[in-house]
Amino acid sequence: MSLTDEELEQFKELAEEKHFRQLKETLCDMNEVDVAEVISELTPEKALVTFRLLPKDLAADAFVCLDVDVQKSIIAALDDRELHAIIEDLAIDDAVDMVEELPASMVKRILKQATPQTRNLINQFLQYPDNSAGTIMTAEYVALRPQMTVEQAFAYIRKNGVDKETIYTCYVITPSRKLLGVVTLKDLLMNPYEMTVEEIMDDNIIFAHTTDDQEEVAGVFNKYGLLAMPVVDNESRLVGIVTIDDIVDVMEQEATEDFQKMAAMAPSEKPYMKTSVFELSKNRLPWLFVLMLSSTISGKILNHYEAAFAVMPILVTFIPTLMDTGGNSGSQASTLIIRGIATGEIEPKNILRIVWKELRVGMLCGSMLAAVNFIRLIIFYPGNTLVCLTVAISMFFTVILAKVLGVVLPITAKVIHLDPALVASPMLTTIVDACSMVIYFTIACQMLPI
Amino acid sequence: MSLTDEELEQFKELAEEKHFRQLKETLCDMNEVDVAEVISELTPEKALVTFRLLPKDLAADAFVCLDVDVQKSIIAALDDRELHAIIEDLAIDDAVDMVEELPASMVKRILKQATPQTRNLINQFLQYPDNSAGTIMTAEYVALRPQMTVEQAFAYIRKNGVDKETIYTCYVITPSRKLLGVVTLKDLLMNPYEMTVEEIMDDNIIFAHTTDDQEEVAGVFNKYGLLAMPVVDNESRLVGIVTIDDIVDVMEQEATEDFQKMAAMAPSEKPYMKTSVFELSKNRLPWLFVLMLSSTISGKILNHYEAAFAVMPILVTFIPTLMDTGGNSGSQASTLIIRGIATGEIEPKNILRIVWKELRVGMLCGSMLAAVNFIRLIIFYPGNTLVCLTVAISMFFTVILAKVLGVVLPITAKVIHLDPALVASPMLTTIVDACSMVIYFTIACQMLPI
Repeated sequence: MSLTDEELEQFKELAEEKHFRQLKETLCDMNEVDVAEVISELTPEKALVTFRLLPKDLAADAFVCLDVDVQKSIIAALDDRELHAIIEDLAIDDAVDMVEELPASMVKRILKQATPQTRNLINQFLQYPDNSAGTIMTAEYVALRPQMTVEQAFAYIRKNGVDKETIYTCYVITPSRKLLGVVTLKDLLMNPYEMTVEEIMDDNIIFAHTTDDQEEVAGVFNKYGLLAMPVVDNESRLVGIVTIDDIVDVMEQEATEDFQKMAAMAPSEKPYMKTSVFELSKNRLPWLFVLMLSSTISGKILNHYEAAFAVMPILVTFIPTLMDTGGNSGSQASTLIIRGIATGEIEPKNILRIVWKELRVGMLCGSMLAAVNFIRLIIFYPGNTLVCLTVAISMFFTVILAKVLGVVLPITAKVIHLDPALVASPMLTTIVDACSMVIYFTIACQMLPI
Repeated sequence: MSLTDEELEQFKELAEEKHFRQLKETLCDMNEVDVAEVISELTPEKALVTFRLLPKDLAADAFVCLDVDVQKSIIAALDDRELHAIIEDLAIDDAVDMVEELPASMVKRILKQATPQTRNLINQFLQYPDNSAGTIMTAEYVALRPQMTVEQAFAYIRKNGVDKETIYTCYVITPSRKLLGVVTLKDLLMNPYEMTVEEIMDDNIIFAHTTDDQEEVAGVFNKYGLLAMPVVDNESRLVGIVTIDDIVDVMEQEATEDFQKMAAMAPSEKPYMKTSVFELSKNRLPWLFVLMLSSTISGKILNHYEAAFAVMPILVTFIPTLMDTGGNSGSQASTLIIRGIATGEIEPKNILRIVWKELRVGMLCGSMLAAVNFIRLIIFYPGNTLVCLTVAISMFFTVILAKVLGVVLPITAKVIHLDPALVASPMLTTIVDACSMVIYFTIACQMLPI
């Protein structure tokens, strides 16, 4: 299926030895994703020659799959006629994605080669807010009229369907582009030729507005198992469709952003390997500063009990274990809750049930961890029974507190319309750390001769 | 689009007041997902009456969307004839999913009502390894013969397509079910009626084996932007197809599992709200034990330097800040790497470039964090310049080390065929903690009069 390294080497050799006819024949039989992979592996010069060998359709399809750097070098070398062919062959969403990545001078040249209609569409698409349905939709859909018969609809699709993103879901609109209904190719195929589109279309339409958030659109897609969804403007006019492949990208991107936020970073769509050292640092430093400064609260608490561990230095030995176990216990709970909120499984109204659940999980986990820890300490620090007991009791309460905070924090964030992943996860460890120290030294002061 | 709480209330009232005719009429116009939501909200008794009102097709579609508990109570109340209708109307993958969830006695009753053919299929599907392509595929696909003309193919699809999972991609097979090629409905539609399927099919097939891992299958789906993929057995015979909606589920599930693993939990497919306190604890305790015991290494290190903080108790105050900042710095790096490996962006062969990148990020972040921390400490602890300098230098080296370990650990895990999310992430904090303490006290012993 995917190309092996050896196959890629063979393609490189073919290009180096200028066996272009053989190269072309092999590439023409291949998937555009693989063709793009081959072109990316060649030297810029050979890549350009190879790209020009490709039939027009395959060239446009493969072009979309290329890295921006390779796209740039190809665009720079193409003449205006070739550029015109490429830009007109691209789906409008792919053209917009490309235009957003390329430097301004190149964009100017590209837009000059586009037809006024394409240019207007690209400009319109560029104006939708970031991460909205408008930015992931495409304008290449099949639109039918309600009065058409099934036979006419088929004739229309056969004539106009070639360049559409999908022909399997068709959209029924009025002359003013108001969306009336949806009809699948399957519906058309399963009904007699004489029936009208209006009779078989589904007018119970699931649609999105151009300004809807892409994550919400993805949620609706998943809920109803859709392959495509129409997007309308403020006046209910059909302006584009979002297809499942775009939704798959959105899901992957949103999951990646949640991973980044939960690890205390500013989310970034840019692939790691293409992000500069400076950018990576810029994404990471703000939270590191905040957390560094807030972790001094734990330091202040320790400061407060300085007298305690001046008398009993052994108490310090158990600080890492308590802090780490508390942090781990809390992040287990918060991760499940944050992910549950993201996938829609967990809703804030369930907070009491969830806290009750985590309270019991905390008691179960806490008592087992405390017991094991107590036995271990008794063996390694014989004669210090009271110290061992102090650590065990602190462990028990720390774990319970961590579990409860781990669910309360993200749900509270959600309720006050903050991003649970962004707020709750990075702050949790710091808060649990501070609390665990207060618990530890409060219990120590009660139980030990300090 | 989605049902509002008020709409759900209205449906409940209709059922309570036994306006079943009106209820039926409204439900028949709705999406099966919403119908299932309505049924779930009703009392078991009303749910059953409502379910029986639905037309056969809608009933089967809605049944799949119901929670297991509701499914159970409905199955218990259906007579054998009704049960037969449901089971024969389900797609085979949905039937298998249901059978896996239900108690054995119910499964027995269901299988008894299925035709021998369905029963054999279900039993065959149940035997595929967990998380393999075999478990997510379905057997409802359109199979064509190579000699068919386009016209014959259309006639065949019109006759047999109704119950298929998708009719938009058709599979061309020999009488012994060997897979020859793939033809889309679009290809059929865009070609003359006289041409044969063989002439227009694509024989460059992207396919999976029944035993392939579902995560790999999802990767190929995304790479090539597929809507469906054929699955073959050891003898290259077509046994089923995987469709994009299954892949979307796989992606969500795999992301959830990675979140769980990175938060040091045993991965679980079960939704949080349906997981018992005992199960939740069972998933969380193993790593908590491992991490609690391994964090005592940091304790041992502190133990070793007991003399140091008996002389200078102030040193203890800065331990949380160093540990937390180290842990956060490391998990930022490891999260990006683990996610990059999961999405296929990062490959082990890039390790040197990545380490070099993180080394520079570490130096940049480390120096800024050290500088800010130094200034802050100088203000709050005047006269302790050497101590402040010790903390700042330790901070600098801890951040660099954490960043480098954060990338080396997951990539090493990948190279030795361990799961990066499972191994690298939970261990990282513990390792960074221990290292940061060694760095801190080594520098302290050099710079301070201990």
